[in-house]
Formats: sequence, structure tokens, C-alpha cells
Amino acid sequence: MQTRATLLAHARDTLGAMRREGRYREFAHLEKLAGRFPVYRWHRPEGVREVTVWSSNDYLGMGNHPAVLEAAARAVAEHGAGAGGTRNISGTSPIHAALEAELASLHGKSGALLFGSGYIANDAAISTVLEALPGFIVFSDAKNHASMIAGMRHAKGVTRVIWKHNDLADLEAKLAAAPAEAPKLIAFESVYSMDGDIAPIHAICDLAERYGALTYLDEVHAVGLYGAGGGGISERDAAAHRIDLIEGTLAKGFGVFGGYVAGEADLVDFIRSVAGGLIFTTALPPSVSAAALASVRALKQDPARREALAGRAAALKAALDAAGLPRIPGPSHIVPVMVGEAELCRQVARRLLEEHNLYATPINYPTVPRGTERLRLCATPFHTDAMIADLVRALKAVLPARAVPLAAE
Amino acid sequence: MQTRATLLAHARDTLGAMRREGRYREFAHLEKLAGRFPVYRWHRPEGVREVTVWSSNDYLGMGNHPAVLEAAARAVAEHGAGAGGTRNISGTSPIHAALEAELASLHGKSGALLFGSGYIANDAAISTVLEALPGFIVFSDAKNHASMIAGMRHAKGVTRVIWKHNDLADLEAKLAAAPAEAPKLIAFESVYSMDGDIAPIHAICDLAERYGALTYLDEVHAVGLYGAGGGGISERDAAAHRIDLIEGTLAKGFGVFGGYVAGEADLVDFIRSVAGGLIFTTALPPSVSAAALASVRALKQDPARREALAGRAAALKAALDAAGLPRIPGPSHIVPVMVGEAELCRQVARRLLEEHNLYATPINYPTVPRGTERLRLCATPFHTDAMIADLVRALKAVLPARAVPLAAE
Repeated sequence: MQTRATLLAHARDTLGAMRREGRYREFAHLEKLAGRFPVYRWHRPEGVREVTVWSSNDYLGMGNHPAVLEAAARAVAEHGAGAGGTRNISGTSPIHAALEAELASLHGKSGALLFGSGYIANDAAISTVLEALPGFIVFSDAKNHASMIAGMRHAKGVTRVIWKHNDLADLEAKLAAAPAEAPKLIAFESVYSMDGDIAPIHAICDLAERYGALTYLDEVHAVGLYGAGGGGISERDAAAHRIDLIEGTLAKGFGVFGGYVAGEADLVDFIRSVAGGLIFTTALPPSVSAAALASVRALKQDPARREALAGRAAALKAALDAAGLPRIPGPSHIVPVMVGEAELCRQVARRLLEEHNLYATPINYPTVPRGTERLRLCATPFHTDAMIADLVRALKAVLPARAVPLAAE
Repeated sequence: MQTRATLLAHARDTLGAMRREGRYREFAHLEKLAGRFPVYRWHRPEGVREVTVWSSNDYLGMGNHPAVLEAAARAVAEHGAGAGGTRNISGTSPIHAALEAELASLHGKSGALLFGSGYIANDAAISTVLEALPGFIVFSDAKNHASMIAGMRHAKGVTRVIWKHNDLADLEAKLAAAPAEAPKLIAFESVYSMDGDIAPIHAICDLAERYGALTYLDEVHAVGLYGAGGGGISERDAAAHRIDLIEGTLAKGFGVFGGYVAGEADLVDFIRSVAGGLIFTTALPPSVSAAALASVRALKQDPARREALAGRAAALKAALDAAGLPRIPGPSHIVPVMVGEAELCRQVARRLLEEHNLYATPINYPTVPRGTERLRLCATPFHTDAMIADLVRALKAVLPARAVPLAAE
């Protein structure tokens, strides 16, 4: 076989099918403007326009916080652009160590370990834990993120049991049906990113205790945003001490880049020492670590910013509801607006951008199930009432009128 | 089972065994000093000392290049600390697009795609290609990096055939023995990072053509360093057009952070569209992309820096040879000095650091086979003759006299 020709034909067929189904993703070129967030410059061949971004994961605008920018700039000047090596090969600066100590403290744990991203943190930590003991059974919430599933699939000899999303009765039935002598891990998220709902952490930990299971909590969409010091839902609910491993990101609420896990020091050291492949890659640049450290420290003492986020999310939800727009109800800062069809979702997003200068990413399969395609909106502390009014007006103009059933909040 | 207690006991046992075998890794806290590279500050509880680093992967010192630092600082000021989203969710800036165009051009390809690291680029690109056609057979050089092997293992239904390192006869025998109708990929590196030897690219491509195989080349330890414009060994040997996918890093020769693949635009677009999990993570910060872009552009026009690297590597090799130190011969900038035993290797590195203020990472199993533990040295353009003389003196003091057979260069 001439592999090249066959593969290229397959690639072109696949891309063609994605285009026909409206699932082909084009990355808009959006220039972030420090100090003007959430206003970006949208670059196209035809020219440059200013747009308001409604789909940023820089939930609190910390990517533009003066202390964060100053820390990044200072680290570039003092330590250069890159780390120059893996953590093990000259790439561990005192800044990396300080950031890990700060993250451990944020979650009330004795250890924390940095990774290149939250995706890698989940993949590495979960697969390492599951391979540590023979016969591990992992109980995985049905809506867990792809990176958690990757960690489960990359571990050999593991049984994966999927429980219904946030359904305690189903989780308990499945725990009870499993052999008592098998090691068990319950893996779940606090804030689910596509629906914006929140897990009942204490109740899940009650089940974990009853059945002797370890607990693994993904707080990617919550760290920085919830809890008195930004430690996430597990801090808000005073449940962090019941979670064995808390995984988080420095790229969303903290506005920078990178991921981590926090837990008991020996367990974290075990992951560090065994999960070689995924931490023995080049360490985060000193400027990234320094910016993240500044962000974590600043947010620890900035409940006002968290309150502003909650206030803006409430204002956005109220405005959508008042306009009769089909919002998926939920208690978090994530506000999904249902569209329900891939090509339509793409068109709605394109019209928002082209006709109204508003950027909202269309979320299609496989990120969400077919038939539940949506726009996923987030109002940061920097989205004004006027911006919300603009968005609602534009959505009413571009969303076809349709009945979408709403569940009770 | 009480999983937590069982797992913690296992973790402590494993860490204890690693300590006993001398394989437990402690990360030295090394503060990189922009403008003074390769001099770092080593932080310990007892105090801070200046040390010369001999194990940096910032091979050309580009992490301290003024144009690179200026680009990073400007991007922080203009665009903030983080990208604020995945490539698909508002995280693609014009800088990311320009960097991908520059990398495609660097390798004479029509497309390139950024990843969070070279590890992720290998994992995602290789697994995506291998899953694209049924019955793929991947022919993998025995010394391929862990990240390439991860990509092969993460693809379902793939046959992995390992050929002897850089051995064309063995590769051909294995290609000939495989079914003619199966899709085939030959995966190899240009510069092998632990031995410093170089693959015969053209001869491998001859075999690929004869047997209809696709070619995948990891140039992680070569991009920026070799070729008239820094395009790696495939540029130096005028072989880039014969390679289907070239994978590289922005974290070593280019001195920043991140990884990429370059190839035919439709094939790269296919990887972008299908390898969801690993590119739908937060995009590289604008400052990282801007610094990398500045580095690639600067190095394209800086053959003198590449010549300086070659000159310094030659000087280091000559000095080690003159002192009778057990160097593993090789044609590249990577200079391994054989120690041959894990605990001894760790002790040698510790004595270099504590007694001589020289940092060289001990390379132990599983990175290299047991019995071939080594120090891996790199002389950058910033390592002076005096630094080389210091290193040789120190190595003579701490390396036990022993006969290590040397192969012919």
C-alpha cells in the first residue's frame, strides 16, 4: 500500500464530512487586549474589528491583573523566556517550588505537583494511581472530562464503571455491586463545564468512606472562583479534607497556564516519581509560574472579585430569562444557551460574530451529545450591564424561536 | 479494602525502594539568571550558591536572547498573561497563527500545528495517524523517545514492530516481512538525546519509498541547531521533503516552551480536527508564542550561533578525551560521560554540585538501560574554555578511575 496517498485521501474525506455536518472547527483569530478584557480584536483577511468575547475561560480576568502581568514581566527579565529543561534536568526554579507550596496550601494539602496542563494532570495522576494497585475499579461520573477518561483508559488492567451524572443512588448501587476487596476510586468534577451544574461533594465522600474508595476531584472550573480563598467548591463546602486528590488548572480562574494535583505529600511524591512521561517534559517557563503564583496569591485575598463574578452571572441569567431565551438552568458561573443542532449552532455563532461583534464558541459533538449543541456563555467581572443587554438583543435576533424545555433550577 | 491506606503504603514502599536503589529523583532548585546563562543560583536551606549548569536543554541560550525576551515582555504587556481559552474557544491569537506559519515554512511544509509540548505533539500526532487507517503497522526505532511510544500505545489496533537502533538492514528485513497491503509508518528521531547519535534520514526514506511507508521524524534535539535556517537534521541533509511529519519543540533549541508537528496542510488539519483531546486544552500564552516566534525568526538568520555550538561541543569533547574521561563518542552537541551505576551516578552528580559548583543531571534507569547510567553534558555557545577546564578538573576528581570501552567515532 502507498500509505501516504491512502492516508491523505482518508484525511480529506474526514474533513469533508466534518464540513458537511457543520462540525469542522475554524479557529477565529482573536487578539486579546490587556486592560480592555473582554474586548478583543478579531483578525480576518478583510480587516480587523473589535468584538466582545463571551466564551473566555479567563473567568475572573486574572490574565490581565496588574500584579500577574508584573510578575510575568519581571520573571522574563530576570530569568529569561524558558525553563531550559525538565523539572529533573535543571528546570525546577525556586518559583516552581513556591507555586507548588502555595497550591498545596490553597487546598489544605501537604503536597502539590505542577503539570503542563490540567489535561496532562488528569491523564497522568489518574493513570498512575489506577496502575499502582492490581484490580483497581474506577467509578467515573458519566459527564467527566475527556482528560479524566484518558487517564482511566491509559491505565492497564483497570475496570471502569460509569455512574449516572451526579446520581448518588446509582453510584451507591454500583459501589455495592463491586467486590469489597477491590481497590476503588471515585472520580468526579465539582463544576461541570458544559452544563454548569455542581457535584454533591459531601454525599459522594460519604459513599467513598462507606465503601473504602479513594476520591479524585477535578476542580478545573472552580479553582480561584469559589471558596473563601479560591480553593474551589471543595473549599466552599468545607470538603477538601475528604478528597484524596484535587486537580486544578492555572489557565482558567487563575488566568495563566498549566495544571496541577494536590494531595497527601507521599501520594503526590509517588505520582511525581512514577508518572515519568508526563512530568519529565520541559518545565513551565519561570514567567508562567511566577504569573500563576501571583494570581493564586492575589485571588486568595480577593473575595470581591469572586462576588463580582457571581453577580455578573446572576445578571446574565436574569437578562436571558427575561428575554425568554433557552438557558440551561444551573447554579454556577457557566451559562449555556441551548441551540440543539450542529450546523445551526455554528451559524448562530457566526452571525453573532459577523453581524453583532460578539464572540461565543459553538459547542458541538463530541464535546456535548448530538442534539444538545449550545453556546456556552460566561460573564466575567468585566462584562458590563450594557454588554449583557447587547448580547441579549443579538441572541434574540439570531436564535430561531423554538420551545426548549427547561428543567427546574 | 480501605483503598487510601493500601495506596499510601504502596506509595511509601515504592519511594523507599527508589531511594535504596539510588533512583529517587530530587529536583535541585536552580534559579536561571537571564544574561548570565549558564550560571544559575542554586537554592538550598543552607543558602544560595552560584553554579554552572552543564545539563540545560536551552542548547543555544535562546531563552536569554534579547529579541526573545523583548517579544515575551511586549506580549505580556499587550495581551496579558494567558490565552484565556483553548485554540477553539477564543485562544487562537494572530501570534499563534503566525508561529504556525513560520514553523511550516521552517520545514518547507504547507502546515504546522502547535501543542503544549513536544511530548503531547508526539503522543497526539502519532496516535491520530495510526488510528486513521485500519491495520496500521508502525516501525519504531528501538531508542525512540517515551512520548513517541506513548502515541503508538494509545492508538488502538496497531501493530508495533521495533527495529534495531539506526540499523537499516534490520528495518528493511522487518518491512519486507510485513504484509504488502498494510499501511505502514516508520517513526524515528534525528538526534537521539541520550547517546547523541544521528539517524541516516535519506537511507530510511529510501526504504520508506520502497515499502510504501509514511515517515515520522522527531527533530526535538535538532531544530534550531542544525540546517542552514535551523530546520534540523532534515534540513541539513536536504531530506525534509521526504518526511511526512516532522515533530519539533520550542523548548530546547528555541529556548521557550511548546511543541509542534509540520507536514502537508490537509494531514495537519486532520490531526488538528481529530486529535481533540490534546489540542483542545488551553492554548499557549501569547507571550510564549511571541517569544517562540521571535526565537525561530532570529535563529533562521543566525548560523554563527549554530557554529558556536558546534565549536563548543568539539572543545568539550577534545578536553574530555585529552583527560581520558569515558565519553560516549557521537557526532552531535550531546556529550554523554559514562558512569555505569545508578547510585554512583547520583553521587558523582552530587559531588560535582556540592564540591565543585557544577550542575550535571544524573541520567538513570528507566531513561537509559541499567548499567549505562551517565552524565549528559551540553556545552552551549556560552560555556567558555575556562568553564570546560573547570568541568574536566572536577570530573577527574569525582569520577572513579575505571576502564570504559569506547566505540569508534
